[in-house]
Amino acid sequence: MSENSKFQSKSDVVRIGDIEIGGQRKVFMCGPCAIESEEQVEQTAECLRRLNVPIMRGGAFKPRTSPYSFQGLGLAGLDILVRSARRHGLAIVSEIMDPRNLDFFLDRVDILQVGSRNMQNTPLLREVGKSGKPVLLKRGFMSTVEELLLAAEYILTEGNPHVIVCERGIRTFEPLTRNTLDLACVALVKRMHPLPVIVDLSHSLGRTDIMLPLAKAAFACGCDGLMIEVHPNPSKALSDGQQSLSFTELDRLLTGIRPLLQFLEGENRQPKSVCSTSGTIRSQDFRLDQTHGNTRA
Amino acid sequence: MSENSKFQSKSDVVRIGDIEIGGQRKVFMCGPCAIESEEQVEQTAECLRRLNVPIMRGGAFKPRTSPYSFQGLGLAGLDILVRSARRHGLAIVSEIMDPRNLDFFLDRVDILQVGSRNMQNTPLLREVGKSGKPVLLKRGFMSTVEELLLAAEYILTEGNPHVIVCERGIRTFEPLTRNTLDLACVALVKRMHPLPVIVDLSHSLGRTDIMLPLAKAAFACGCDGLMIEVHPNPSKALSDGQQSLSFTELDRLLTGIRPLLQFLEGENRQPKSVCSTSGTIRSQDFRLDQTHGNTRA
Amino acid sequence: MSENSKFQSKSDVVRIGDIEIGGQRKVFMCGPCAIESEEQVEQTAECLRRLNVPIMRGGAFKPRTSPYSFQGLGLAGLDILVRSARRHGLAIVSEIMDPRNLDFFLDRVDILQVGSRNMQNTPLLREVGKSGKPVLLKRGFMSTVEELLLAAEYILTEGNPHVIVCERGIRTFEPLTRNTLDLACVALVKRMHPLPVIVDLSHSLGRTDIMLPLAKAAFACGCDGLMIEVHPNPSKALSDGQQSLSFTELDRLLTGIRPLLQFLEGENRQPKSVCSTSGTIRSQDFRLDQTHGNTRA
Amino acid sequence: MSENSKFQSKSDVVRIGDIEIGGQRKVFMCGPCAIESEEQVEQTAECLRRLNVPIMRGGAFKPRTSPYSFQGLGLAGLDILVRSARRHGLAIVSEIMDPRNLDFFLDRVDILQVGSRNMQNTPLLREVGKSGKPVLLKRGFMSTVEELLLAAEYILTEGNPHVIVCERGIRTFEPLTRNTLDLACVALVKRMHPLPVIVDLSHSLGRTDIMLPLAKAAFACGCDGLMIEVHPNPSKALSDGQQSLSFTELDRLLTGIRPLLQFLEGENRQPKSVCSTSGTIRSQDFRLDQTHGNTRA
Repeated sequence: MSENSKFQSKSDVVRIGDIEIGGQRKVFMCGPCAIESEEQVEQTAECLRRLNVPIMRGGAFKPRTSPYSFQGLGLAGLDILVRSARRHGLAIVSEIMDPRNLDFFLDRVDILQVGSRNMQNTPLLREVGKSGKPVLLKRGFMSTVEELLLAAEYILTEGNPHVIVCERGIRTFEPLTRNTLDLACVALVKRMHPLPVIVDLSHSLGRTDIMLPLAKAAFACGCDGLMIEVHPNPSKALSDGQQSLSFTELDRLLTGIRPLLQFLEGENRQPKSVCSTSGTIRSQDFRLDQTHGNTRA
Repeated sequence: MSENSKFQSKSDVVRIGDIEIGGQRKVFMCGPCAIESEEQVEQTAECLRRLNVPIMRGGAFKPRTSPYSFQGLGLAGLDILVRSARRHGLAIVSEIMDPRNLDFFLDRVDILQVGSRNMQNTPLLREVGKSGKPVLLKRGFMSTVEELLLAAEYILTEGNPHVIVCERGIRTFEPLTRNTLDLACVALVKRMHPLPVIVDLSHSLGRTDIMLPLAKAAFACGCDGLMIEVHPNPSKALSDGQQSLSFTELDRLLTGIRPLLQFLEGENRQPKSVCSTSGTIRSQDFRLDQTHGNTRA
Repeated sequence: MSENSKFQSKSDVVRIGDIEIGGQRKVFMCGPCAIESEEQVEQTAECLRRLNVPIMRGGAFKPRTSPYSFQGLGLAGLDILVRSARRHGLAIVSEIMDPRNLDFFLDRVDILQVGSRNMQNTPLLREVGKSGKPVLLKRGFMSTVEELLLAAEYILTEGNPHVIVCERGIRTFEPLTRNTLDLACVALVKRMHPLPVIVDLSHSLGRTDIMLPLAKAAFACGCDGLMIEVHPNPSKALSDGQQSLSFTELDRLLTGIRPLLQFLEGENRQPKSVCSTSGTIRSQDFRLDQTHGNTRA
Repeated sequence: MSENSKFQSKSDVVRIGDIEIGGQRKVFMCGPCAIESEEQVEQTAECLRRLNVPIMRGGAFKPRTSPYSFQGLGLAGLDILVRSARRHGLAIVSEIMDPRNLDFFLDRVDILQVGSRNMQNTPLLREVGKSGKPVLLKRGFMSTVEELLLAAEYILTEGNPHVIVCERGIRTFEPLTRNTLDLACVALVKRMHPLPVIVDLSHSLGRTDIMLPLAKAAFACGCDGLMIEVHPNPSKALSDGQQSLSFTELDRLLTGIRPLLQFLEGENRQPKSVCSTSGTIRSQDFRLDQTHGNTRA
């Protein structure tokens, strides 16, 4: 465990160039759900640059429920994303679904995203672990916090300390939101583990009208950044349009959240008190815990 | 509907003496899960007075899952609460379970609490509606936001505009918290209805170690107050000790949250922008909605 | 506990006249969701008599989600039900929601139904317990099996051994059925307690097209009877029409299930083997179980 | 779609040698959760042969929640399974997790199992689809029936008609069973699709004491076979021992279920009536259904 603990203590902050995830400043990762065209991607990259959003997201491979839905542009789509992002100096996060695409991704993206549906795809977790590349690990929509942290352990134990976890809502009976955003997950991970935590507001809520108050809540309870879907024309998006912000709406959201961010960043620069007792996760606990270790659902 | 709409537009702020719930200042409602003894209640009331918590909670009748668990001291317990609260100038909220106890409660408490298990106990809803007394209506732990608002309508349509709704977590598969705090509920209610919204952190989380970050999150997304369980000696509480704060812990929580509250109250005094499009609930929508109106679960 | 245990061992079979619930023969309880009119009730009673369904159900008070939905005909509706049922020699089960209506119900119905929304309405549970009348206790749609049995204990400990429990589906994320029928509940109750168990297929499924296979499944796993909603004209029902059978469909269902019932009743007449190890519930377990006894959700 | 429909109409029965899945006779698939040793596998194979269980299961790669739990013996384990199964004339089903292992599996197993955690691993679904080999597709523990059928479509649209779907319980709030067995899923799939349906009782229940009544229920509502975990010494199993039957218990279960199976097979030989209206799934519906097609959870 000593090996692993060492990695974990380093993973407090994940660095991509001069961007820090899990540091003093909160980050934003924005972009379209799916890469659709050069024009869409280029317009979005321009907008993000203008609004000082440092990381661009965009799906080349879309894990769609139905084989008859738009599946993404694949590797060609990823190249579209890379060209625009590089041109505007943005870092890139994109979802990898198949371990056989790893080399292609490693040459192109800054953060490998492991999606909600693949949180327990252990061959994939091991491969991204071996790669040493920063990984954004999304919580499964049916996974417990403990399962999320154990999935992170699959990556960490391969020697990759650069893991960022992402709360994105869990499946419940409530129909007014696409999923139920579980902000206790953020606070629990922060208590148990030094990993940075991101909140994906778009998938959590599935609607844009309550995004500002929940963005405030996510930051107030300690998350390190937000992932938000943006589209030049949400009503024409090939997937998830109803939860995507237009450029104007993103601008308004960032403006609306700024005063709180300044307040929180000021508060963080002061010495911490109440929460300072939280320790690192004791992975050994999980190993000893036969009941949960046994759980395959 | 005009009658009802009129009430609703008034219900924006619920007043108990000079306490405003739903106004500029955030409120706290604290006290023991169950009233156990004069000493316990008196110590708690003293503490609340000292910490400027204006409203005291305490259960005289406990809706316990098992008939073999402590059921509360009943009407005698309520009198204990009333004496201490009055002595220290605190307002009182306590749960009513049986419509036959209504007169007893009306003489003694300031806010009638309808508990999670009784959210759809329509005879009880109608009675507290007829009473005209402020009502704290807790969301059922497996009720949707729409069902919560429709339960509120049962009270409002009896002519009682003084309804406060309370998010207290919903039942999901996540075991690290007692329930899953659904803060989107707060934002959704705020969008749809002018009713004040309280968050019960103790029942939502069932643990105290992550209460501060979630308290911040709850306020940041717009709730009007918090309900928190406090006990002179949580480890000896007859019910829910694991989720109760000691007096020292409550003090620390209130101190920890103060800077954010000052920031938010300052922000609220400025003219609103982004969220200002939200309208009042259109009760008629529910009436027309046959699918949902039909839902009995 | 000795008192209670004695009652429990007697409660194996609940008798209403010469009808046995929990005995060798399986029973059916059918009728409309809500009592709407004399004609509707009379036609249904005639149909049930003709098809040898011995127990008629019908709601006088409907616990509707919305105050703007049809609320039932109330006490007048109950009298309509009583007249038709008596005329055709049918026993009556109907839901009581308010303890203040108890005397009215005791004079008229054979089985007091406590609905899903009231499973943890402890004042109501105690009152029907004191009455000594047979009680059909429905599982809350958000309640665990243990909570169901503890709710039954509230009635049993008042000295009323005549408790029938009813599985009626739990709330999950699956949208194709109104609730998720949890047949493990039937087997678990049968293992732990000698109480008769009924399955409410209509509320479990919310649709009629898969009722026959699930009726077979419910009987095959040991339930003592089925509750099924029937309406002379389901498409015109004031509530829950989509889950109600027409008279023809009920006839077809009863015909379709008959061969299996004959097989199962034949099997039951033989000496039992595998399942014979199951004991009665040890109520004391619940009392000692602080974790669960404490659970208020 | 015509291509696909043609395949689907053929897929009614999946044949492995002279074993038919989805035909007149019900099938059993038994074996250990994880392959642990030659001795364990050989003893189990002998037992299955003796009890006329035609298909053996056994996990070579275990998708464990924790990287510190036993992960299975891998490809070497699969060879152990293959040797014993072939020696005793048993067909083999085993879970594939990584598309890169496909060739190895194709040479050795008769049915490729896609596990619950991989139900939406679309690269894997496409690969097993291209292989043309029979596939046992397990429902995700928090997937809807529609999502299960759409995952099946990923395999079917690659030209592989030999798909068997498997209900294995969904994740709910009920703690007395590992998952909640959703038998409505069996009936719904049977109404919508000609695919054979298997029920995995071990993962659904997570306990053995109520397996017989639920086995009866599963068959009564129309499933085509059961998957059950067996171990020479369940208390020493490296995974999932608490839900595994011993050889004696399996013998008793098969004996206990036999009379019902004979009854049901007799009933099935007669011309069907009530359920005969069910058609094949109209895949096009899913394609047109933008709301659901969009759903990524």
